[in-house]
This record gives sequence, structure tokens and C-alpha cells, in this order.
Amino acid sequence: MFTLGIDFGTNSVRALVVRCADGEEMGSAVFNYPSGHQGVLLDPKDHNLARQFPGDYLVGLEKSVKGALAAAAKKRGFSRDKVIGIGVDTTGSSPIPVDAKNRPLALDPKWRKNLNAQCWLWKDHTSLNESSQITELSSHLRPQYIAKCGNTYSSEWFWSKVLHCLRVAPDVFDAAYSWVELADWIPSVLGGVEKPERITRGVCCAGHKALYSDEWGGLPDKEFLGRLDPKLAALRDRLYEKAYDATTAAGKLSYAWAEKLGLQPNLPIAIGEMDVHYGAIGCGVAEGVLVKVIGTSTCDCGVVSADQMIRDIPGICGIVKGAILPGFYGIEAGQSAVGDIFKWWVEVVCGGDAGLHAELTKEAARQKPGQSGLLALDWNNGNRTVLVDPLLTGLLLGQTLYTTKAEIYRALIEATAFGARAILERIKEYEVPVQRIVCAGGIAEKNPMLMQIYADITGCTMQVSGSSQACALGSAISAAVLAGAHKNFPAAQKAMTHVLPKSYRPNSANQKVYDDLYRLYRRVHDAFGGVDRNADLSRVMKDLLVIKHAARR
Amino acid sequence: MFTLGIDFGTNSVRALVVRCADGEEMGSAVFNYPSGHQGVLLDPKDHNLARQFPGDYLVGLEKSVKGALAAAAKKRGFSRDKVIGIGVDTTGSSPIPVDAKNRPLALDPKWRKNLNAQCWLWKDHTSLNESSQITELSSHLRPQYIAKCGNTYSSEWFWSKVLHCLRVAPDVFDAAYSWVELADWIPSVLGGVEKPERITRGVCCAGHKALYSDEWGGLPDKEFLGRLDPKLAALRDRLYEKAYDATTAAGKLSYAWAEKLGLQPNLPIAIGEMDVHYGAIGCGVAEGVLVKVIGTSTCDCGVVSADQMIRDIPGICGIVKGAILPGFYGIEAGQSAVGDIFKWWVEVVCGGDAGLHAELTKEAARQKPGQSGLLALDWNNGNRTVLVDPLLTGLLLGQTLYTTKAEIYRALIEATAFGARAILERIKEYEVPVQRIVCAGGIAEKNPMLMQIYADITGCTMQVSGSSQACALGSAISAAVLAGAHKNFPAAQKAMTHVLPKSYRPNSANQKVYDDLYRLYRRVHDAFGGVDRNADLSRVMKDLLVIKHAARR
Repeated sequence: MFTLGIDFGTNSVRALVVRCADGEEMGSAVFNYPSGHQGVLLDPKDHNLARQFPGDYLVGLEKSVKGALAAAAKKRGFSRDKVIGIGVDTTGSSPIPVDAKNRPLALDPKWRKNLNAQCWLWKDHTSLNESSQITELSSHLRPQYIAKCGNTYSSEWFWSKVLHCLRVAPDVFDAAYSWVELADWIPSVLGGVEKPERITRGVCCAGHKALYSDEWGGLPDKEFLGRLDPKLAALRDRLYEKAYDATTAAGKLSYAWAEKLGLQPNLPIAIGEMDVHYGAIGCGVAEGVLVKVIGTSTCDCGVVSADQMIRDIPGICGIVKGAILPGFYGIEAGQSAVGDIFKWWVEVVCGGDAGLHAELTKEAARQKPGQSGLLALDWNNGNRTVLVDPLLTGLLLGQTLYTTKAEIYRALIEATAFGARAILERIKEYEVPVQRIVCAGGIAEKNPMLMQIYADITGCTMQVSGSSQACALGSAISAAVLAGAHKNFPAAQKAMTHVLPKSYRPNSANQKVYDDLYRLYRRVHDAFGGVDRNADLSRVMKDLLVIKHAARR
Repeated sequence: MFTLGIDFGTNSVRALVVRCADGEEMGSAVFNYPSGHQGVLLDPKDHNLARQFPGDYLVGLEKSVKGALAAAAKKRGFSRDKVIGIGVDTTGSSPIPVDAKNRPLALDPKWRKNLNAQCWLWKDHTSLNESSQITELSSHLRPQYIAKCGNTYSSEWFWSKVLHCLRVAPDVFDAAYSWVELADWIPSVLGGVEKPERITRGVCCAGHKALYSDEWGGLPDKEFLGRLDPKLAALRDRLYEKAYDATTAAGKLSYAWAEKLGLQPNLPIAIGEMDVHYGAIGCGVAEGVLVKVIGTSTCDCGVVSADQMIRDIPGICGIVKGAILPGFYGIEAGQSAVGDIFKWWVEVVCGGDAGLHAELTKEAARQKPGQSGLLALDWNNGNRTVLVDPLLTGLLLGQTLYTTKAEIYRALIEATAFGARAILERIKEYEVPVQRIVCAGGIAEKNPMLMQIYADITGCTMQVSGSSQACALGSAISAAVLAGAHKNFPAAQKAMTHVLPKSYRPNSANQKVYDDLYRLYRRVHDAFGGVDRNADLSRVMKDLLVIKHAARR
């Protein structure tokens, strides 16, 4: 038996055919979104804007699935009629304005070229003002709403984006009957759902991103929404009352799409989740196992049994029951830029390419911890966790007249690892157990230097996911559980996921140096991040020199 | 009538023939020191080390003077017998260990290859520990000694270097009969002085750099020196009792050198001064006129009439009577790296050359103040004034994923201008009048963008010296006064110096933005510099974004 996992990323969509028995990846195919810059619609006048053309999703859905099935067909033992379910994951929060027939406005020629009528991609930050307003209102009127997302509502999330659209493009807002997260919309398309009210919404996206919780009866109440804008309160009736975890099916494959894809009709379709959540499942997330997806940005996912009480964790932006694994609180944290920072340094500043990445990695690998005398903050794209502040920026200090670009490259890697440690320390402080960290993403697979630095800085053994398509794999696992191939998620994960044999253990000598550097990182982090408003930074540069000289000795 | 000015720089020596009547430059010649890297002997194992082979000075002295005379000979009205005096300036503090015959040890084959037997170049920072020890001892035992140099004795200065030599190379120290500043040694060579005791020492180098003052009877007393090392106390007897300003001649041209150079014997030789001090004279320094020599590092020189009392100015490293102009207190401040920071960015980090400097300058010129959202500290080589702390390092903040190398280039230029403003505000606070700033050095002549930024940030009109060889010109002026061609320095400066017609006036719109940025610079400066140990930096990044968005509007 096999299932299909379909992963809608930022630049492309990937479909993967997986064997339920052991997670063997039978075939996959990738389709790059043709619109905009690498699939993203940009506005040269506004760096904060990032949209996506929904038509690309439909073409990509068909092409990637057909490609994956064709690839699988070359493998012994596979046949299309043995595909028993479909799972979907996407970026998020990426809401799409749709009409009353569940069609994205942007598919209508009238709105085709309107940036506000497209899918509002997760990394769109145009709604900074709206997110502040929601945070402000919530902290006074409904503090419980944002207590589960670090007391700060983000410009990346559902209500900020919808409210911003209402303000800058009222025509688009008025034309939209409802708004649907991409993760919910794709399953609804496959299931032939033609009314937004009939979409089965996942709690994963609804969770903190739309401020949904069973504790307060679903979405934010109308009084709250009305204080933001009466039209937002009116929209609530055209959204949803209830959101579901992955034990509920999103629907069944429609005849039209079954025919298009060459699959059996009525196949169960798993609930849509965000890529990192199904990615976490594909990496084997469990109590005590933190999953870290390291890409352009980073997402950390952990789970804690829903049987026990969990306190709200300051600065941790998502604690939602069932958001990742049914029966567990999902805990989500993240760094707004990781790979993007390295890319910025190598490509934007140094004007290099993959060759320079490789060269700097090689040079940086020869350096000892602390040897450069440098310290950086990993905030070039703001700080998602634990400060939840998109208005923070990067910082580099300790440079002399001899500082090289490879030293800065390493300092930036270290900065992201310090950021990772800050998250880890925060969740451990709130009794979320972490025994192992499993990483996924290209950087984890390809950069042993970075992985060793992460191990040395966090003091945790780092493992690498056995699948380089963990998100799609997680979607396929969800489909396999739903279709009954495994009795539950832990059993499916045990059978279908694994880690690579090579793991990275902390080197105790390096750990010692990095503990010292981390203390300095925290001092600068807390000073510029607003945690410590009476910071004594007078020794930071000198302490760095002491560490530097010790490392060079 | 004509005089010769000879300027011993870091990489080369330049001789200049000047007409006394109007400062017309008749001819010049440059000789690049052949030893080491661009004339500097380095130690690959120790970035702090910078020495120079004294033999290079002798060859360079002869070649540069002969070249300048030959060039002048092509001009109408010049003849060698009309040369009436010689002036010399050099880098400093650059002490040389010499034997009892006033010969540098390094000219003896026995010591030829020994780095500690060479001239200890001004920018040698190997004696950091010794400078701290001298500061420490002085603050307890003789606070007056360091009150005139910002309460901090520098590793760049005489006693730090000599004490360090004593510790790391006692054989060299023991072999040296005395130590002579390069600025004193060159005139003594020209004058045929064969005993170190007979050298006429200038107060310019003796001043704060050797802790000399008539107030306490010359050099530091033996008790003080003995507490550092008994051998240092013993050395005091082989140094000097009295140092002189530029009204005293250093000597007369010896027959041997007169013959070698093709000049009249017995020509008066002006007292040797440090390059920046004679440079200040060549730029027209006077009460109310601050001179700024902008090169790899920057030196600011001002004067205040010796008739009035002057308070010690915290962080200002040299307040010495007669150090620049006779009859005035000389006030010296500086930034440890300016051009060197731009060079570091373009050449060391970005791997570019002069072409990239030009390209980045062009791009940076298109940016508006504040537009990049960046803020930098100009401390890649420590901070000379007003913090007097060589253990500070560089800092850059505000970077996003879009920050370009040209934006960083401009931020580094602005950082050096903020550093210049910090100096200016400090000396004005202590009632040193500044009506105009005259700049010298290649950067001032070639980079109008930088000059405008300096005007906008300091709020002062910036002028550029009419001579691109201001140091050599100042030496020639000193020789002209000594030889009687003018009745005093102000008269000689009036006749022999001028500024370029193009001056840079502050643009009031830019000034306003830079005032805001300077406040943020000071906040970060004071926090990391140890001035404010309860710094609130929580708004710095956000305030930068506010400025950035306003600039982009």
C-alpha cells in the first residue's frame, strides 16, 4: 500500500509516493511555480510584500502528482490502485481570498493582476501595523487570545493579513466571500468542495495563527473582531465554527481530480497542515524529540501530551492542541532567517554564488570557536522566537581591520545557533522535555560544519532526518494513518521515518568556549531586544578579545 | 629663498622644495621604503607588531632630497644656494634604540635581523600590557602625568615600547645606549650629532608621548620609572633633561650631509616634529582653525594660546605647550582608523580594489542619510579619542536581508564622521574654539561625498588644504621661520599656506537626520565604550527603522 504526500513550498510544489510499510520513497516530482520571482509575486516598492498566484498551485498540483506517480511506476511493486490516501501540507499562514464558489479571486480575470487578490504568502510582512493593533487590542480585551502565541500577534498571520487587505484594498476585501488558508484550500480542491462553508479546516492553521481555540469557542468573538473593523466581525460568519486535527479527514478525492490524476475516486484526503508540522511528523517528532527544519528560516516543533497541563510559554508563538500530532499540544517556535542570512552574506553582500558558499564553509571550518573575536545577532529578518519582534535587525561586532568574510560567515552561522539555543532554553525552562534534536532541510544534510556548531552551541546531539522530503513524507504518513495502514501516528512514524546514521555530538572543549560566547550573545540580545533596559555592555568587546586570544593560543 | 621639508611617512619619505615668499611647491620626490611589507616589518604571528628598518630612512633621506632638488632645478628662479633651511617631520611615537654613537642598533650586522632592534613604528601595539601598567601606576603615583593625555597612556607611545622591549628582548634593551624618536633622530643625523646626549629633542614627541613636561621637571622621575623597572630609571640618565619647541634649532647641516645632498653646510635645521603637527601648520592651524589629517587613521590638531589657562580635557590625548605652534598649547586628538576601515571593507572583506572603492563611492553617493537603516561604530582599530581604548572593536547594526555592500560602505564612512563629531563636541565643551575645519590627506582631496557627509554630520564647514603635501610644507615653513624668512609662524602660514576654493557646507536637511543618527551612535558608543553602564538600547533598532522609513518616503 502507498500514500501520496504533497508539499506546497515557497518556490515549488513536490509530490511524493511513499510505501506505508516502511516509508520507502517510491517516486517524487517537483514543479516550480512559474509566476513572479521564483514563484513569489513581489512589489519593487515594498520589500515586505510577498504574494503567490493561486493558479500556479493548480497546475503544480496536477503536474507534480502525475510526475511522482510516473516515477513510482518504474519501481517494482507499485501500482496506482495501491494508492490508499493523500496528504497535503503547505506554507502558512498563507490565506487566499475566495468567492462563494471557493474559487480564488485571482482566477477571475478581473482580479488576475491585483496583488491583493492573490494568496498572501506566509512571509508577507505588509501588515505590521495591523498585527500591532491586534496585539494591542488583545492584550487589553482578550489577553487569553495571544497568551498562546508569546503575547504578540504576528504580521505573518491570518487576521493581520485580512485586516490589511480590508484597509489597503477594500474592493478586494468586499469581493471576497471568504478567506481560506492554502493548507485547507488544496484538500478542498481535491475533494471538490464548492462552498467555503463546507471546507474542513485544520486546527493547525486555525490554531494561534487565526486565534482559534475550543477554549473560547473557536475563532475570536465578534465583539473583538468588530473593534478592529465591523466588516471583520461580519466575515466571521463566512469562515468556520470548528477546526479539526489530523484524526478527521478533510474529504474524499473527487471524481474530476481522480480522473485528472489517474487515481481511484473517493480516496481519503488527510487534513491539511502547515509544512513544518507535517515535516515534524516526517522527522519523527514525539515527546522528548524536537524537530528542527533548517531552511531559509527555521521552525522548531515539539509536542507535549495533551493529558498534562501546559503553561503558556513567553515568546513561544504556537501552543495548540492537535496542531501537529493528535492527542498532543503542538509547540512551535522559529527563527525568521537562517539560511537567508548566509545567502544574504554570500550573495547580496559578497556578490558570490554556490561556489563562494562552499569556499567560505571550507575556510570557516578551519576556524576554532571564538577565534575570530566576532559576535553576531541573527535578526536580519527580525526575531520570531523568543522576542517575537519583527522590527529587530542584524548586528555584528568584534570586527578589526583583519576580519575576513569567512570569519563573518562563521559568526553568522554561530549567531543562528545561539538563537536556536535561546529557544531551546526557553522551552526547557517550561518543562518541555528535549532529549534529541532531529533536523531536516538541505542545510542539515549538506553542512556538517553547521551541524557540529549547533551541537556544540546547544549542547544537544543533533541527528539528521533520513528523508530529504520530510514534509511530503509527513503528509503521506497522515494519509496512511487516516487510511488505516497504521493504527496511529506513533506506529506510523516508527515504521515510516528514520534518521541518518551520522549524528553530531557536542565537543566538550568547544562547548566551554561557546558557553562563554552565548553569555555575551544573551547580553547583547537582551539589551537590543528590550529584555534588559539597564544593560552593562562595557565588557562585551573586551571579553570577546579574551576569548579570541585564548582560542589563538 | 627656499626651504626643504622632509616628511617621513609610514610607507615612504617625501622631500619638498618650497618658495618662502608664497609657499609655491617647486619640486618634490618620494622614496618608498624597500624593507618589509610596504616599508613595514611585520610578524605574521602577531598582528600588533609594526617595525621599520632605520637603514631605509638614510637611503630615503638622500634619494628624496636629491630628487626634490633636481625637480626644483627645472623651475625658473630656483637654485640650490637659495635653500636656506631644512625642516623634518616623521611618524611618532616611533622610537629607535641607538648605541653610544647615535647609531641605530639595527645598522649593526649583529642586530640587523632582530625585529626588536628596529624602529618601533607608531602603530606597533605589542606593548598593550605595558601601557596598562603605566596608566595604572601613574593614576596612583603621578596622576598629573596622564592627566594631559586623557588619563590613559597608550601602547603607541615611547615608554610602553621601551618597557616592552626591556621585557621581551632584554638583550636589545641592554645593547641600546639610548632611545631616540625618529623625529629627533633624522635632524641629528643631518646635523652630524654623534652622541645621543647631544641630540636636541623636540617637545612635540617628548610631550605626552614620553610624559615630558616642564611642570614636573622634564621626563618622569626616577622613582616612577624605577617602579616600572630599575633599568628604566637608569635609562633616564641617558635620555634628556630638556625638550624644545620649534623656536629652537635642532642643529646645522653637517659638512658630510651638505656634500652628499649638494647643499650649503651649516644650514639651520628645524626641530623635528611629528608629521601631523607640521601637517597642521602646513594646513594653517591657528586658534579657531582645527586641522584634520584624514588618512589611514585621522589626526585632529588645534591650538589654544599659551597665555590662557587650559583645563585638562578628558579623553584628549595630547595637550602640550609648544607641541605644534610655539606660544600655543597644542591639542591633539585622533581616530585610530578611518581610511583603514574603508580599505578593510573593500579590500579585505569584499576582495575588491581601487575600482570597487570608486564603484561603492558612486553607489553610496546616491543614498540619502538614514536610508540604509544602518549604524556602525568606527572602532575596528580601537578608539583613540575620546575613549582612549585600544581594546574596542567594530560594530555594525541595522542590517536586513537586503543590505548591500555599498550601504555598509556608506555606514562606515558615517561612523568615522560620528567619531569626528564626538571629538569636536568634546573639545568645544572645554572651550577650544573651532570656527573652521581644514582637512588634508588624499581622502579629503578625492572624496567629495565623504567631505559632504563630514560637513553634514559635524555641522562645520569643511575646507581642504591647498597642499597635498601639507606635512612636508609645514616642515618647510618651520625651516623658513627658523631661517628668518618670516618673522613668526602666523606670518609664514599666511604667506605660505592656502585652502582650495571648494568648501563643503552643511546641508540643513541632512544635518537634521544625522543629528538623530548621532544620538543613536552616542547611545551605542557610550554603552560599548563603558561610558554608560546602564544603557537602554531597546529602541535603537526601532529608531533606526523610523529614520530609514522617513528617508525612503
